[in-house]
Amino acid sequence: MTKNISVVEKVHSANDQLAIENKQQLDQAGLFSLNIMASPGAGKTSLIERTLPILKDDFKIAAIDGDVATSIDADRAAEAGATAVQINTGGQCHIDAHMLRNALMELDLDGFDLLLVENVGNLICPASFKLGTDKNVLIASIPEGDDKPYKYPAMYQDVDALIINKIDLLPYVKFDMDYFKKGVQMLNPDLITFPVSCTTGEGIEEWVTWVTEHIEIKKTS
Amino acid sequence: MTKNISVVEKVHSANDQLAIENKQQLDQAGLFSLNIMASPGAGKTSLIERTLPILKDDFKIAAIDGDVATSIDADRAAEAGATAVQINTGGQCHIDAHMLRNALMELDLDGFDLLLVENVGNLICPASFKLGTDKNVLIASIPEGDDKPYKYPAMYQDVDALIINKIDLLPYVKFDMDYFKKGVQMLNPDLITFPVSCTTGEGIEEWVTWVTEHIEIKKTS
Repeated sequence: MTKNISVVEKVHSANDQLAIENKQQLDQAGLFSLNIMASPGAGKTSLIERTLPILKDDFKIAAIDGDVATSIDADRAAEAGATAVQINTGGQCHIDAHMLRNALMELDLDGFDLLLVENVGNLICPASFKLGTDKNVLIASIPEGDDKPYKYPAMYQDVDALIINKIDLLPYVKFDMDYFKKGVQMLNPDLITFPVSCTTGEGIEEWVTWVTEHIEIKKTS
Repeated sequence: MTKNISVVEKVHSANDQLAIENKQQLDQAGLFSLNIMASPGAGKTSLIERTLPILKDDFKIAAIDGDVATSIDADRAAEAGATAVQINTGGQCHIDAHMLRNALMELDLDGFDLLLVENVGNLICPASFKLGTDKNVLIASIPEGDDKPYKYPAMYQDVDALIINKIDLLPYVKFDMDYFKKGVQMLNPDLITFPVSCTTGEGIEEWVTWVTEHIEIKKTS
């Protein structure tokens, strides 16, 4: 048991070191980067598909898509206008810093302004693996239910922005927004939140404005 | 690296041995048991809440609810009529056979006909940890999208029954049922499937009939 724990600790510390190196590499390129996390089907790829058409004329955008299997997400990101790299994790439930490093090698980072890393659909494991991106973004979705901050606190604690997706489904499901927000507030009081619908496009503009501001800040820093 | 892999292998083989012991214990008690798995918010607790009121007058039912945090799910299962035990996994992304064994110790198994184990909300990790239950059940949900069998194949491969929940949302989301079913068919050709809505109650009767038949078979075996 002790042996197992020490191996897990070693894995995490090696991961953190690689995350620092990834961050240095991305900083050197002046590239703003996001690690987008969520449950399966919460709308990570749909958010990327909504974001890209608005930004792709002004900025060069790369997407790195992590999945257990298939290249469905990278194909969709490429179709929407990104230079896309697929990471197949070989059964692993998250992207780690090493996988991201390998994917970064396939991109000429100096040629990009924005990097969108789409993590594996999972509301637990990705929270434990830093990647070295500038910001961590979590997507919650209305049909998942209003109790998710209470039940998956680690994921809500460490993120810099929260998308609440599928607000178009609010009339059809039981979702107490006050209860949800109270849970978020308890875990991450200053978290910036964007209610959106990737189906109708509602709220996407505010999100894209936030991304654009951060691309500009990174460019001039 | 080699060291890490060998520890993982040891963990899995120890888990499988404990799963066999759990199975023996459940068989001795003549108890039919289900391991219910799904993404966060797909409807595991809601399915239990729909199932219990129909069965609780005829059968004694226990529920074991696995969560990273809170006892929200066990509270809901108890409210619906089960004797409920909460497993808090301490951050772990799945229930393993050892956690189940500890939870079984809190129940007088001979006094029950049905055990519902609600796994942690996760579409990847629980597939790797056998628990020793009679059947593995997966809940897919319509708003998660029709590509899930393709993207999370391991989970679909090893289950004995599939619930397709939230069919009441079909008019409001993009979901190609033929594409979804083609993916399932490819991975698990004989999988029995129950389209249901835990909101409206549609389809629940067919599911409960299947459960009842298996309780009776287990009792007389």
